[in-house]
Amino acid sequence: MKGFVWLVGAGPGDPDLLTRKAARVIEEAELVLYDALVSNETLDLARRAQRFSVGKRAGKKSVDQETIHALMIRAARRGKRVVRLKGGDPFVFGRGGEEGLALARAGVPFEVVPGVSSAVAAPALAGIPLTHRGVASAFVVVSGHDPAAYRPVLGGMAPASATVVALMGLAGRRGLAAFLIDRGWSAATPAAVVLGASREEARVWTGTLADLPDALASPPIDDLPGTIVVGEVVSLAGVLGQMPFVHARPVAARAAVRFGAQ
Amino acid sequence: MKGFVWLVGAGPGDPDLLTRKAARVIEEAELVLYDALVSNETLDLARRAQRFSVGKRAGKKSVDQETIHALMIRAARRGKRVVRLKGGDPFVFGRGGEEGLALARAGVPFEVVPGVSSAVAAPALAGIPLTHRGVASAFVVVSGHDPAAYRPVLGGMAPASATVVALMGLAGRRGLAAFLIDRGWSAATPAAVVLGASREEARVWTGTLADLPDALASPPIDDLPGTIVVGEVVSLAGVLGQMPFVHARPVAARAAVRFGAQ
Repeated sequence: MKGFVWLVGAGPGDPDLLTRKAARVIEEAELVLYDALVSNETLDLARRAQRFSVGKRAGKKSVDQETIHALMIRAARRGKRVVRLKGGDPFVFGRGGEEGLALARAGVPFEVVPGVSSAVAAPALAGIPLTHRGVASAFVVVSGHDPAAYRPVLGGMAPASATVVALMGLAGRRGLAAFLIDRGWSAATPAAVVLGASREEARVWTGTLADLPDALASPPIDDLPGTIVVGEVVSLAGVLGQMPFVHARPVAARAAVRFGAQ
Repeated sequence: MKGFVWLVGAGPGDPDLLTRKAARVIEEAELVLYDALVSNETLDLARRAQRFSVGKRAGKKSVDQETIHALMIRAARRGKRVVRLKGGDPFVFGRGGEEGLALARAGVPFEVVPGVSSAVAAPALAGIPLTHRGVASAFVVVSGHDPAAYRPVLGGMAPASATVVALMGLAGRRGLAAFLIDRGWSAATPAAVVLGASREEARVWTGTLADLPDALASPPIDDLPGTIVVGEVVSLAGVLGQMPFVHARPVAARAAVRFGAQ
């Protein structure tokens, strides 16, 4: 067996939400380089592998990107089966593209194993469909910590024309909410923060765009990944979701009527 | 065991891209109601179940939504383990929200099992990262057959500020391309059509927005699901992808330099 690298999406955390292919390549790996959001339960599947954390954690310096490339390439050239394991999907804010390019340049064979992206799964697990007939027929996924990147995308959109999902946006939620309201979104638009989706400690906050800056002000949130969802579809969380609420604004009458909730 | 319904995402087609949880509930199901895009290999896992196709196929009338609800509810009330199996993710253009609401109203317990959405996986399998540092920091997913829904979303976006993914958009690709160019997108923006991602017959067309209307004019395409991707990230397909090309426009020099391809 020649060396090979799999760029693998680990999904939102629960190892049951790994794909079958991801689980298999993790089980067979000899080296696993994993990011901070990969759960311990998922790493436990890598029984044969040396495992190294190369991810960013708050307040701690991460292994730099060039070093990650060098580690993958060196191990593959030594004939190892290498898994580069990332939360969610490797090509959604995962720098998987850069890693694939580095491998291609080095002549190392590799394959991408798509994963369940938190952009879709975190809302779904909270009972929020990103699209819903008559309510939302499109969705936009942005990096919530990067206003320079999301402003040209969200700034011109007709308000409420799509569901907005912001990953890595907890710290920037005040700015995001203010920007959308400034661009004509109703301050009463339903909004959610989904924390730790698919993990045991998962919980969801729902409220409005106006409330979003103060969402989760008291409990500490920086230890769980959070996904922000903005749009009328959030109103469905109360009916479709089974995730514990840390705060739930009652579904507005308008939404309840529209969705036919009883 | 009381009756229960799982709303399950089957992913893009390859049963290896099912989640472990999806595979398990399919294997244990007594009734599987499946959509047209669910592959035979996936259905083969449902060894114990009665299986009914309830999906739309071109030129054939599908089972209507109310009937699907009634079938699920009736079977669950008889104590059956029911899997409602949808291509991709059940909450991305899957009408999973409507089905969850119907179950909730009927008092039938249910759970959503997120899947690998084709919106993410089809580009990934073709070597197209939806986000890529310095190139795209956001992506937009629209229904390509519904201009009234995508125009308010895409019409105001700054051109090239996000990767655009259009599902169910093959028949409408001329209109989508014309609309983006009319809104200021360069006609030279790279574009791709990913066909049958994760299936054996998968292939990808790449070209430009200007070429998109005539993409795949000769081979028949209506038997494979297709995903349209528009944005500079498409240039990476030639380096990161392993899917056979039906047509590949050479990567432009500008992109090759930017991505550091050698």
